[in-house]
Amino acid sequence: MRTVNAYAAVSATEPLVPTTIERRDVGPHDVLIAIDYAGICHSDIHTVRGDWGPITYPQVVGHEIVGHVAEVGAAVTKHRVGDRVGVGCESGSCGECEQCRKGQEVYCLNGNLQTYNGADVDGTITQGGYSQAIVVNEDFVLKIPGSLDLARVAPLLCAGITLYSPLRHWNAGPGKKVAIVGMGGLGHVGVKIAHALGAEVTVLSRTLSKQEDGLKLGADHYYATSDPATFEKLAGTFDLIINTVSARLDISEYVNLLAVDGTLVVVGAPTEPISVDGMSLIAFRRSIAGSANGGIPETQEMLDFCAEHGILPETELIGASQINDAYERVLSSDVRYRFVIDAKTFA
Amino acid sequence: MRTVNAYAAVSATEPLVPTTIERRDVGPHDVLIAIDYAGICHSDIHTVRGDWGPITYPQVVGHEIVGHVAEVGAAVTKHRVGDRVGVGCESGSCGECEQCRKGQEVYCLNGNLQTYNGADVDGTITQGGYSQAIVVNEDFVLKIPGSLDLARVAPLLCAGITLYSPLRHWNAGPGKKVAIVGMGGLGHVGVKIAHALGAEVTVLSRTLSKQEDGLKLGADHYYATSDPATFEKLAGTFDLIINTVSARLDISEYVNLLAVDGTLVVVGAPTEPISVDGMSLIAFRRSIAGSANGGIPETQEMLDFCAEHGILPETELIGASQINDAYERVLSSDVRYRFVIDAKTFA
Repeated sequence: MRTVNAYAAVSATEPLVPTTIERRDVGPHDVLIAIDYAGICHSDIHTVRGDWGPITYPQVVGHEIVGHVAEVGAAVTKHRVGDRVGVGCESGSCGECEQCRKGQEVYCLNGNLQTYNGADVDGTITQGGYSQAIVVNEDFVLKIPGSLDLARVAPLLCAGITLYSPLRHWNAGPGKKVAIVGMGGLGHVGVKIAHALGAEVTVLSRTLSKQEDGLKLGADHYYATSDPATFEKLAGTFDLIINTVSARLDISEYVNLLAVDGTLVVVGAPTEPISVDGMSLIAFRRSIAGSANGGIPETQEMLDFCAEHGILPETELIGASQINDAYERVLSSDVRYRFVIDAKTFA
Repeated sequence: MRTVNAYAAVSATEPLVPTTIERRDVGPHDVLIAIDYAGICHSDIHTVRGDWGPITYPQVVGHEIVGHVAEVGAAVTKHRVGDRVGVGCESGSCGECEQCRKGQEVYCLNGNLQTYNGADVDGTITQGGYSQAIVVNEDFVLKIPGSLDLARVAPLLCAGITLYSPLRHWNAGPGKKVAIVGMGGLGHVGVKIAHALGAEVTVLSRTLSKQEDGLKLGADHYYATSDPATFEKLAGTFDLIINTVSARLDISEYVNLLAVDGTLVVVGAPTEPISVDGMSLIAFRRSIAGSANGGIPETQEMLDFCAEHGILPETELIGASQINDAYERVLSSDVRYRFVIDAKTFA
C-alpha cells in the first residue's frame, strides 16, 4: 500500500477537498502510474453530486488520466517504466465473456470495473485520477503516442473515445453527412475526429456563439438549434447524428434531420426518457441508438488515429485548487472545451 | 375507363358497402389485373376509420392484391396476359431519387404512390384491392411464383414484405436470436420467414393462447409477455426484436431483452410516441429502429424466397359480404391469421 495525495468529494453538496488515499501494492499484472494530468468530465460532477444515485464518500473521481509508468509488476509485459500511458473509464472486466473476448470490455456482460466509484474485486471502491498516482491492471493501460502533448491528451481517454467509437461503428467517412449535437467537451472532439475521418461535418449547437471555433476545428457547417428554420432546412439530411447533450432535447426534431437509413446516437447520458414518434422512424427506416465509450483495442486505435491526424482536445490547464470553480464553469458551459488538472498541484 | 365492382367505405363510422368504381384506361406502361384475392390488413381498417387522419370517401382499400394479367399496355415488357401477379402497398414512385434508384421505392424521397388513398398524378385518389380489377404501372407489379397457392399468397404483399425486409436488413440468420413480438397477421408470417432464414426464433405474445401454432410455424420458443418472469429470464438475449404490435407497449421492457448491439425494429405503426430509457441504449449499444414494407426488388425477392421455402400465410377465405364482420374480428384479434377476400364475390 502507498499513500498518495488526491482531491475527494466528501458529500453530494460540499466542495471537493484535498485528502490522501491508499493505492494497492503493485500486483504481478499491475502498473503503477505517476499521474501527470487528469481531465474533468461532466460525469465526474454527476457522480460526486449523486445525480446517478447515492455513492460512498470520500470519492476521488477522474477517468481521463495520463502519466508515466513508475513501477511494473513481475508479470507485466505490455508496459515499461518511463512509458507515457493513460487510463480511461474502465480499468477492469471479466476478460472471459463474449464482449471481452471481442475487445469490447466497455460492454462486458459481467459488468466491468469503472475507474472510479467501481466495486473492485478486493471489496474496495475504486478511486480515480484526481490524484498523484494510480495502480491499474496492465491490460487497461493505454499507450500515449509520443507526438501527442501530454498536457492536452487526457480528455481523449473519455471524450475522445466516446465520440470515436460511434463515428467508426456507424461508418462516418467520405460521402457521409455527420452532425454533432452540442459543441462542448465531447462535441468539439467529435468535430475534429469526424472531420479527420473524411465526413462532411455539421455542428448543431443551441446558439452560434462557438461557430468560429467549430469551423476552425473542422466543421463544414454550423447551425443554431434555437432557430426553428434549422430543422426545416436540414430535414432528411444526415446519415449519422451524434447527440452529446445530456440535457433534455426534443429528440423527434433531430430524428427528422436523419436521411433514410440514418442513425441518431445518444452518447450524453440523458436523465429523462427519450421520446420519439414511431412513424418518423418507420417512414425512413431510421434508428436511435446509444453508445458508451469504447473497448481497450479501440481506445488504443483512437489514440493512434489522433496522433496520426494531430488531434488534441482544446483544454484549459488548472491546478487542483481550481477544481471546484471548474465544476461550476462546466455546469454553466463556460469552458473551451475541457479542463485538465495538472497533477503536480496535488503535491 | 372501365367500371368495376368494389367494396368501399363511405364514412369513418359506417360499414363498407358494395359499389362500383372507375379504373383508368390501360396506358402504355400499365397492366390491367383481374383480381382473384385481396387480403385484409389492419392498415385498411385504420385508414377507413380515419385513425391516421381524415380521408376522402368513398374509399376502396386493400393493398394485398393478387390476380392475373388481363391486358397490357403497348410498351409493357415485364408482364404478359395470363401471368399470375400481385400488387402491394406502393404502386408508383418518382423513379429518379436516390432511394428509387436503389430499388427502395418505399422510401422514395419525393413520396411514393400508395395503392389506396394515394394522390395519383391525374389528381384522383387511388382505390385499392377490394375490387374486381386494378390498373397499375408494370414496374410495381410483382410476379407470383407458380408454386404459391394464389388463394393464400396475398398477405405476403404487405405482411410478408413488412417482416422480410427488416429480418434481412438486420441480418436474421444462423446464429442469430430473433424475437417476434405479436403473433398476429404480421407476426405469424415473421415467424415463418425468420425460421426459414435460419435464425433461432422466439415469439413474445401477450398470452400462450397461440403457442401451439407458433411452435408449429417455426418458433423455437414461445413466451407470454403478461408474465413478468419473461422479462427477467430473457434479459440481454436477442440480436433482433421485431415489434409487430401497434398497441402501446412499454418499449423499455423490450429494449432490455436486447443483447449488446441488438436492434428493436418497430413495424406496427404505433399511435403514441415511443419512450425509452437512454441509459439502456447506451449501456449495451442497443438501437431502436423503424421499418416500412420494402422496395419492389426486395418484394420480388421475398416472394421467390417464400416459394423456395414453401412459406404461405395462414388465411381464412371470406366473401365480400363478410368484410365488415372480418373487420370486427381483426379488431378483437379473432383471426388465425389473415383474412383474404375471394374477389369473385365482388361480382
